[in-house]
Amino acid sequence: MSDAADARLAQATLTPPLTPPSKWSKLGKDKEETPADINIPDNYVAWTLKNQKALPPISWDNWWKELNYISVMVLTITPAISIWGLCTQKLRWETFLFSVFYYYVTGLGITAGYHRLWAHRSYNASKPLQYFLAMAGAGAVEGSIKWWSRGHRAHHRYTDTDLDPYNAHRGLWWSHIGWMLVKPRRKPGVADISDLSKNDVVRWQHRWYIQLILICGFLIPTVVCGLGWGDWMGGYVFAGAGRLCFVHHSTFCVNSLAHWLGEAPFDDKHTPRDHLVTALVTIGEGYHNFHHQFPMDYRNAIKWYQYDPTKWFIWVCQQLGLASHLKVFPDNEVRKGQLTMQLKRLREQQEGLRFAPDSNDLPVISWESYQEQSLKRPLIVIAGFIHDVSDFIDQHPGGPHLITKYIGRDATTAFFGGVYDHSNAAHNLLSMKRVGVLHGGTQHGLDDKAIPPAQRLRVARY
Amino acid sequence: MSDAADARLAQATLTPPLTPPSKWSKLGKDKEETPADINIPDNYVAWTLKNQKALPPISWDNWWKELNYISVMVLTITPAISIWGLCTQKLRWETFLFSVFYYYVTGLGITAGYHRLWAHRSYNASKPLQYFLAMAGAGAVEGSIKWWSRGHRAHHRYTDTDLDPYNAHRGLWWSHIGWMLVKPRRKPGVADISDLSKNDVVRWQHRWYIQLILICGFLIPTVVCGLGWGDWMGGYVFAGAGRLCFVHHSTFCVNSLAHWLGEAPFDDKHTPRDHLVTALVTIGEGYHNFHHQFPMDYRNAIKWYQYDPTKWFIWVCQQLGLASHLKVFPDNEVRKGQLTMQLKRLREQQEGLRFAPDSNDLPVISWESYQEQSLKRPLIVIAGFIHDVSDFIDQHPGGPHLITKYIGRDATTAFFGGVYDHSNAAHNLLSMKRVGVLHGGTQHGLDDKAIPPAQRLRVARY
Ligand code: HEM
Ligand code: HEM
Ligand SMILES: [Fe+2]
Ligand SMILES: [Fe+2]
Ligand SMILES: [Fe+2]
Ligand SMILES: [Fe+2]
Repeated sequence: MSDAADARLAQATLTPPLTPPSKWSKLGKDKEETPADINIPDNYVAWTLKNQKALPPISWDNWWKELNYISVMVLTITPAISIWGLCTQKLRWETFLFSVFYYYVTGLGITAGYHRLWAHRSYNASKPLQYFLAMAGAGAVEGSIKWWSRGHRAHHRYTDTDLDPYNAHRGLWWSHIGWMLVKPRRKPGVADISDLSKNDVVRWQHRWYIQLILICGFLIPTVVCGLGWGDWMGGYVFAGAGRLCFVHHSTFCVNSLAHWLGEAPFDDKHTPRDHLVTALVTIGEGYHNFHHQFPMDYRNAIKWYQYDPTKWFIWVCQQLGLASHLKVFPDNEVRKGQLTMQLKRLREQQEGLRFAPDSNDLPVISWESYQEQSLKRPLIVIAGFIHDVSDFIDQHPGGPHLITKYIGRDATTAFFGGVYDHSNAAHNLLSMKRVGVLHGGTQHGLDDKAIPPAQRLRVARY
Repeated sequence: MSDAADARLAQATLTPPLTPPSKWSKLGKDKEETPADINIPDNYVAWTLKNQKALPPISWDNWWKELNYISVMVLTITPAISIWGLCTQKLRWETFLFSVFYYYVTGLGITAGYHRLWAHRSYNASKPLQYFLAMAGAGAVEGSIKWWSRGHRAHHRYTDTDLDPYNAHRGLWWSHIGWMLVKPRRKPGVADISDLSKNDVVRWQHRWYIQLILICGFLIPTVVCGLGWGDWMGGYVFAGAGRLCFVHHSTFCVNSLAHWLGEAPFDDKHTPRDHLVTALVTIGEGYHNFHHQFPMDYRNAIKWYQYDPTKWFIWVCQQLGLASHLKVFPDNEVRKGQLTMQLKRLREQQEGLRFAPDSNDLPVISWESYQEQSLKRPLIVIAGFIHDVSDFIDQHPGGPHLITKYIGRDATTAFFGGVYDHSNAAHNLLSMKRVGVLHGGTQHGLDDKAIPPAQRLRVARY
């Protein structure tokens, strides 16, 4: 290829054509159905964070003006009703059991429905399952699927930045509940939900949302306990309000605790963490480090013994023919992430250790000079290297006599198994005592003898 | 240096002088005091295993002729007395408590005395402590210090070979007790105990060994329980025989269980293993993988929360001024061993994974040809590489539209944070979809973009 062509090519690389080949673009016509982010510039994130105005920080002077009164009411009245109930009503065991059960139903509405199905498209659900999840999710009173997924997609897309509505860098309180109690300081970063805008069930839920909250959040639990065992009031305060409190804080923990407590076995660039405790309180959403790396995976926990009931629920739905196309990230890539994190850790350890000098850093010494010098200090040749063993003669587990015997001599065969097949630790220690290279001594210098075991494998960059 | 000198040097390396420089040799005159291994040839191990005669294997025809009747009697009569005692005597709680206490005293005689002090010289003990340990060790009835250390040093020196008296490759039964019940099949490999032959306490114990067994193994426990709370018979059968059974099998476990159960965090060349259970039953000798790597270390367990009462005992003796010069292997070398083992494990994992092709293995494609081909299949340029994303468009968590938009274009900026700051997992996955290198596209090819995160660190050989 000519230099001119080269230059043209390079030019082309820098200014790509502006319209995509039409064959691969399948965009809808209608405004709602056009992805919100289809026309954003290549430097959208940096540009927006820099140029978009944000509301002022919350302070003692402005907090009462900045409150989001609807959320504040929902999040204070619900626990108030529960506490009042606890003080005045008897908690019947049937009501208690039903509350726990209904906690899981409405919790799964959020985790298996809102989160893994709609926000992340990690599997396909049949219509009946979708209606069930949409209603169960409404019973958790956390906003409509559309609103919730919009925020959650921005959370994933802009994790730990101010375009993330529940930015964990703003602290545990903010990411848990603070972000809802005040007006959002910024518009969440753009995130596409055109797929949800096209979905009948999502539209239906959004349209009837207030009615669905009342029915699924309060009416159903009240009626079940009332008709079932005559505990109307208990149904309302315990299975309704009390259960709702738990569902709220349980799912909020995914934004707070899951970005704070635990390990980062897949990547530590961002705040998400894996922890059993978080999993226990969030119906399995606690393996959040995995989840942020592989958000379209229907699982959060990849090991069978880890606690992820949401995954189990989706899997059972698949067995029943209600769910399909469960997405799984290639195992090869998952294990690569784990490997990288472990190598990172070992590399730090490696950098904290001292290793033996290699032959390039040592003086080359003749046999005669070695003889001469070993009359003055205890030198031993092993594998072509000259070692000063002054500080080791009395420490030698094989006894000092075996060391002194070889001063001024070649102990290669004896050291390498002839007399004693030394451990790797002994080889490593020996290498630390190198003071020179014997001229011509590389006859012994087979790689396996010259390179101490601790230096045969190492964590290398690139 | 001349070629002739070179040749002479090489010659010298191959035939070392036969006598060590006298200045560094401090050998005694007397036969006992001359190290047994001072004059063995450099190929001693291989030569001996090949040429030394061994007794025939044990079989149905010869076992009764091959029994070592003394050991068989000691190891059967002791449990017989204990069982008889359990059936006929009442176990008083004072006797029980004293038996447990005396188990630890005589056990420490073996672990802190025989093993770590005399066999391994891992610290210095004052005379009073030496007499205490020599008597306590005699109470464990496992042979004299001299005999025991001779065997144990051979065990370390020839671990897992037939020169090791309790070679673990011969199975759990053999290494636990089998080796004592029959005549040794071979003479244990040579091991020097000239240091012990010079030691007064060791000589004294060897000289009065039978008397000491009777006194420390049986008389003392009987008399203590008898004079203390009138339980003469209980003292004899429980604190004497019963306790001895436990001490026996507890210390035998160091040769059997400790070479069989657990992990090898320091080196896996030989059978020794680390396990908490072994530590619990052997008064702390269960970190045996560590111990075989660092036998002259007074510790077996290096972490404070690991169970090693023998170490604690030695440390307390040091505080009391009874012990000194506690040897510790350099921490740098200990951690090297651990690092190597972990790297080995990760290297195996690494070899089980598929990684992305690098630019040398891919065709170089011009911008024009890329344009043309991307009309036929979905190709995207990122960081100078051309990727085929056919199987990924519908799997993309960011939505298919963001991928289709960039077909035939350059998505480097968008992919690297402009639109979305992709996770390491996304980068790794992307790299697996490489099908070509863009001609001139290396302008983007900064290392950090061209090398997927999973390939920036790797376990390398040499
Ligand atoms: C400076 C050179 C040497 C170093 C650093 C060294 C180091 C060690 C170490 C760390 C051990 C403990 C067991 C193990 O980790 O494998 C050991 C044991 C031993 N070494 Fe060396 N050694 C050296 C030279 C030699 C030589 C030249 C001989 C033989 C002629 C020898 C013979 C032995 C024997 C027989 C043992 C076994 C002791 C036992 O377990 O009872 N060593 N050595
Ligand atoms: C073949 C090339 C691509 C691959 C393999 C890929 C892979 C991924 C993966 C694995 C994720 C999940 C989140 C993560 O792991 O970070 C993701 C999310 C995303 N990707 Fe891509 N991507 C590609 C191209 C693009 C391009 C060109 C854009 C932008 C123009 C883009 C925009 C996004 C966005 C916005 C998300 C966030 C989705 C969310 O969390 O809601 N991707 N991508
Ligand atoms: Fe998150
Ligand atoms: Fe998520
Ligand atoms: Fe051992
Ligand atoms: Fe030992």
